Amino acid sequence: MSKPFLSLLSLSLLLFASACLATRSEFDRLNQCQLDNINALEPDHRVESEAGLTETWNPNNPELKCAGVSLIRRTIDPNGLHLPSFSPSPQLIFIIQGKGVLGLSLPGCPETYEEPRSSQSRQGSRQPQGDSHQKIRRFRKGDIIAIPSGIPYWTYNHGDEPLVAISLLDTSNIANQLDSTPRVFYLGGNPETEFPETQEEQQGRHRQKHSYPVGRRSGHHQQQEESEEQNEGNSVLSGFSSEFLAQTFNTEEDTAKRLRSPRDERSQIVRVEGGLRIINPKGKEEEEEEKEQSHSHREEEEEEEEKQRSERRKNGLEETICSAKIRENIADAARADLYNPRAGRISTANSLTLPVLRYLRLSAEYVRLYRNGIYAPHWNINANSLLYVIRGEGRVRIVNCQGNTVFDNKVRKGQLVVVPQNFVVAEQAGEEEGLEYVVFKTNDRAAVSHVQQVLRATPAEVLANAFGLRQRQVTELKLSGNRGPLVHPQSQSQSH
Amino acid sequence: MSKPFLSLLSLSLLLFASACLATRSEFDRLNQCQLDNINALEPDHRVESEAGLTETWNPNNPELKCAGVSLIRRTIDPNGLHLPSFSPSPQLIFIIQGKGVLGLSLPGCPETYEEPRSSQSRQGSRQPQGDSHQKIRRFRKGDIIAIPSGIPYWTYNHGDEPLVAISLLDTSNIANQLDSTPRVFYLGGNPETEFPETQEEQQGRHRQKHSYPVGRRSGHHQQQEESEEQNEGNSVLSGFSSEFLAQTFNTEEDTAKRLRSPRDERSQIVRVEGGLRIINPKGKEEEEEEKEQSHSHREEEEEEEEKQRSERRKNGLEETICSAKIRENIADAARADLYNPRAGRISTANSLTLPVLRYLRLSAEYVRLYRNGIYAPHWNINANSLLYVIRGEGRVRIVNCQGNTVFDNKVRKGQLVVVPQNFVVAEQAGEEEGLEYVVFKTNDRAAVSHVQQVLRATPAEVLANAFGLRQRQVTELKLSGNRGPLVHPQSQSQSH
Amino acid sequence: MSKPFLSLLSLSLLLFASACLATRSEFDRLNQCQLDNINALEPDHRVESEAGLTETWNPNNPELKCAGVSLIRRTIDPNGLHLPSFSPSPQLIFIIQGKGVLGLSLPGCPETYEEPRSSQSRQGSRQPQGDSHQKIRRFRKGDIIAIPSGIPYWTYNHGDEPLVAISLLDTSNIANQLDSTPRVFYLGGNPETEFPETQEEQQGRHRQKHSYPVGRRSGHHQQQEESEEQNEGNSVLSGFSSEFLAQTFNTEEDTAKRLRSPRDERSQIVRVEGGLRIINPKGKEEEEEEKEQSHSHREEEEEEEEKQRSERRKNGLEETICSAKIRENIADAARADLYNPRAGRISTANSLTLPVLRYLRLSAEYVRLYRNGIYAPHWNINANSLLYVIRGEGRVRIVNCQGNTVFDNKVRKGQLVVVPQNFVVAEQAGEEEGLEYVVFKTNDRAAVSHVQQVLRATPAEVLANAFGLRQRQVTELKLSGNRGPLVHPQSQSQSH
Repeated sequence: MSKPFLSLLSLSLLLFASACLATRSEFDRLNQCQLDNINALEPDHRVESEAGLTETWNPNNPELKCAGVSLIRRTIDPNGLHLPSFSPSPQLIFIIQGKGVLGLSLPGCPETYEEPRSSQSRQGSRQPQGDSHQKIRRFRKGDIIAIPSGIPYWTYNHGDEPLVAISLLDTSNIANQLDSTPRVFYLGGNPETEFPETQEEQQGRHRQKHSYPVGRRSGHHQQQEESEEQNEGNSVLSGFSSEFLAQTFNTEEDTAKRLRSPRDERSQIVRVEGGLRIINPKGKEEEEEEKEQSHSHREEEEEEEEKQRSERRKNGLEETICSAKIRENIADAARADLYNPRAGRISTANSLTLPVLRYLRLSAEYVRLYRNGIYAPHWNINANSLLYVIRGEGRVRIVNCQGNTVFDNKVRKGQLVVVPQNFVVAEQAGEEEGLEYVVFKTNDRAAVSHVQQVLRATPAEVLANAFGLRQRQVTELKLSGNRGPLVHPQSQSQSH
Repeated sequence: MSKPFLSLLSLSLLLFASACLATRSEFDRLNQCQLDNINALEPDHRVESEAGLTETWNPNNPELKCAGVSLIRRTIDPNGLHLPSFSPSPQLIFIIQGKGVLGLSLPGCPETYEEPRSSQSRQGSRQPQGDSHQKIRRFRKGDIIAIPSGIPYWTYNHGDEPLVAISLLDTSNIANQLDSTPRVFYLGGNPETEFPETQEEQQGRHRQKHSYPVGRRSGHHQQQEESEEQNEGNSVLSGFSSEFLAQTFNTEEDTAKRLRSPRDERSQIVRVEGGLRIINPKGKEEEEEEKEQSHSHREEEEEEEEKQRSERRKNGLEETICSAKIRENIADAARADLYNPRAGRISTANSLTLPVLRYLRLSAEYVRLYRNGIYAPHWNINANSLLYVIRGEGRVRIVNCQGNTVFDNKVRKGQLVVVPQNFVVAEQAGEEEGLEYVVFKTNDRAAVSHVQQVLRATPAEVLANAFGLRQRQVTELKLSGNRGPLVHPQSQSQSH
Repeated sequence: MSKPFLSLLSLSLLLFASACLATRSEFDRLNQCQLDNINALEPDHRVESEAGLTETWNPNNPELKCAGVSLIRRTIDPNGLHLPSFSPSPQLIFIIQGKGVLGLSLPGCPETYEEPRSSQSRQGSRQPQGDSHQKIRRFRKGDIIAIPSGIPYWTYNHGDEPLVAISLLDTSNIANQLDSTPRVFYLGGNPETEFPETQEEQQGRHRQKHSYPVGRRSGHHQQQEESEEQNEGNSVLSGFSSEFLAQTFNTEEDTAKRLRSPRDERSQIVRVEGGLRIINPKGKEEEEEEKEQSHSHREEEEEEEEKQRSERRKNGLEETICSAKIRENIADAARADLYNPRAGRISTANSLTLPVLRYLRLSAEYVRLYRNGIYAPHWNINANSLLYVIRGEGRVRIVNCQGNTVFDNKVRKGQLVVVPQNFVVAEQAGEEEGLEYVVFKTNDRAAVSHVQQVLRATPAEVLANAFGLRQRQVTELKLSGNRGPLVHPQSQSQSH
């Protein structure tokens, strides 16, 4: 047996191996939720921009593949503008810190905000005629914001501290008709790739494609005809020639060239020198600041807004898709759905509180546990859930269908824990500080079943026989303890 | 070439082979319905419990993969209690034999059944105060029972004969957000695995996982912190420490230990010594027995109940999710939707007759063919269907889209036949005994198209040209024979 | 090392290779939309029939796998009859040329068309009693026709020119519960396979199946019991024995034999000698011809029909599924939804204009661009789209989420271009002739976002900062050019 033959053999083996390994990740996908061990996840990749930072979790993490979602954490500096982008997957954004404004571009909706003709910008630029655009929406810390699939939106930090937001992209949502790869389309600028892991796969895909036995493709027209202009940007407009853009938009060639954005080093979050001067019916910023400080005032205003909104909804006509509410504050203490003064509080935003979520098929929960407070064992009936720790520290326990503890660890600020549908989970805040987290859920009417309520709903005799308990013990089990799932341990014994 | 090298080579080959074979089953999945041959399936696995038997079909059977479902047959002995369990997949249960009671634990629903304080249990146990729990539901032979995803339920046989039930788990249902592996979560007890085939895959998955190139996982906290207590049970409560359970439920340590159920050898169906004494508005058991014997009496009562229910539904408010009807008897002769006194009868339960099925996206059909009776060729327009033979014997023919006979065999009691969507199927009872079967369908408004009705709906000239028939033959084809799909062969020639 | 061993080794390698290669296409599927290059596709396969031609696109084309659809182009000669067939995937048909009639067989619907008893067929055949059948529907060039999943339909060309139609089979539609392989079930005749590529996979599947470790299958009954009759046809009725068919349909053995259609060489489109004489309330064919010629007359009639329909819908009762409208003409100039007298016009059929599309979850768009006319850059928010060129020539540009131009080529009559969800696309007609195309969309309320409208909806300052534009340039960008997406380049510079 000659050396060359052996080499050939080795080569073949390598080829087969790589072909097989390529499919291994797919094997994971189809049994994607057979997780015998769940890990707390921190971001795997970061993109630095001129005025901010984008961090992403690798969507190939087994936990994220099971949940069928991708996550992005964005930090936008003061005066930073996150460029308009859209995604085939619906997005749910939670504002961890700061405040800002955002604008959606809803197709078929009018430009309802008109700027007066006489206004002067601070930068000396001059508007020959008044600008008009679609509605601008303010948001602040604790808000959940819903971005439908395919709709471009931009975000601007008009506060004094960094704006920090965590976004869920529900890639397995029925609205996403592409594969489960997370995709962000930037309209302009020169953004860097946010999920490089999926891009590697794409290259793999590319190599394979050439070995694909194509049928009768019309090959004679396939060579790309436009080569005079290199594809320099990464925005969707950079894919068109400036000549074509100039023709289509009826602009000068220079404007068209800038639309393609070549050689822009600012990446997806750019600095607005002097700040963005955007019209807004809320009045001066100073007023706003005051309100922020006098929180109760703010609360009242929100309630008022709420009242108006519910009145509007009675009418049934006024809330079109163009003026739909897309945000809801779920961190406000006064809004809590569950509350135990010793253990903590829970608020939920779902399609009953924020109707637009019906179209996104997503919902969210905000949980704040006080020191040692316990969110007793429960499971999500109809949703996967993603727990992101905002502040503090605590401990999370997750049990799978075989009774195996797949997670039992401390968690801290910035970590993400996936809790698959029906897996039983319990959270407990640490001894020194409380635990604050947001939970994204992949169902707009996500429902939770609490173990203790299940025990209460079950006849005592069934419990006695199921668990081998005496009648007295069953009674103790059903009647002692809190009625709700938020518990503060009575004893001083520690659970760690 | 040295021996060690050859061994290494062989080893490599084996490794590649296993990697490839691992993916082979996935290959089947994606072309999951290219079945050139369908087999009648009998259970592949059995779990013996203290008071019953659980039998499951291997979900990796190509036919079941195509239909995207899993099946379980449970036999519960008299006084047997099937422990509370839930699944992320909705379940449809058909009662083949016997009678029993069951309880669901619906989250957010009140404990509407209250037991008087003075009652004494037969076993000498004593209730210091009255027990209360959610609604208890009776069921009997011929009932279809709908269990929504994520909702725990328990079942108890209060009859004198074994209770036999066949359950469909619709793992490809939109309600199941995990992968297509069937999962049953037991709240308590020490259940054995019901689908060991999927567990092997899990181990395979486990091995692979360690070769997964993890990103920036927070490894320093990942070691499981709680090792003092071994994970002895298989219920979800066994995954929590008894200390944590005691703290959370505010119970004694001994109660908490029993909740974790270590060393329980009774498995998922346990015997209730002396029988379960559960309150029930239906009165004494003797009365019930009488009714069972005087069947017509029973029928009347059901009709009455039916009338009340439809009146209630008119109101539209009273039937909340908490009191929703979850069962319907489809075997009663008086309820038949199709009937031919010589050939047989068919009853259907769908979301129009049992509204809760709308949420499960499932329906069922009960078919009883008399001796030699034929259910003429037809296909399911919008559903896969699973035919389970309850009694008797007969013959089933199934044809695929290429006109190939993929199944043409005798079937007998206990066999399962998968009929994929649009595949054309015909059933015929045997000469000696009739054929009785239940059909589960993966659509809550499953519709059937009958070949003969299609022929009648088609213009005579189109038929003449399509089949090369003379006008006289077309007229014979369209007008002779039954109007309905239940046929008794007029001639004495046998079809076998 | 001996030769035999080496051969064995090679064989093993080949086996592993084939196993691995088999899975490669699946790998493509799961990352199915990572298309770094899109190709214009022409049909890969043709089936010649007695009176027509069926051409199909290979569903394994990466572009079609991404979109999750299959396509068929049928040419039916005058007097040609396309035999009754059905598919588990819903179909949307666009009539490119000619006119015809079609009949659906909707289950549970009555035979509402009755033929008088005295009529004599031209061919000398004689009807002893009047024929009755379900509604017959006329259609003509420019019509979109919706065929629900599982419903058989036949088509007949009663015009003088070939009838040409392109059909979309939405294999990834929720209505299709089988795998993504396109399937066409023919009720009768001896059709040839329309998608041979998927059949090869089936054979691969078959080989593998025998190595599958089956559990407890009831093997002793599995041998096919009926071998006296070979499976000669490819229709679903050919899968049943003629004896069984005779028994079931109560017909003579000769009729039953013809239902099985052995030795029919005519394939799926058969010639009707002397033409089909089908009753139709529209009156004589000559009258119809007249109307066709006086187009405006035809238009009026359609409007009248439209008016009646909307009145009927007010009632809400009359339009049952049995009489539902399933077609709409989208090519008529008078019906255009978008119109620019220099650039072109666009019409859309969706579930708001044709309610049955709600059940199919599909819609369509007809676009006619005049010479040099541009359909400015836009994207489909919530659908994949398939662009099929009917007439003329032009150029299409498609850009993906990374800003890469994945398609920038001339297209011509008969070519198909897949535009995945959110990919940005622009079309332009050629200099010498216009461009006419139909777009199938995989959503019944497909929505489009136009880049220019997005720019207009965005505040000027955001645009200035995003693209590095001066205020004057932004104003030019927002205010110059057409308001709509149909543009005719003002300058004479060519974009090619």
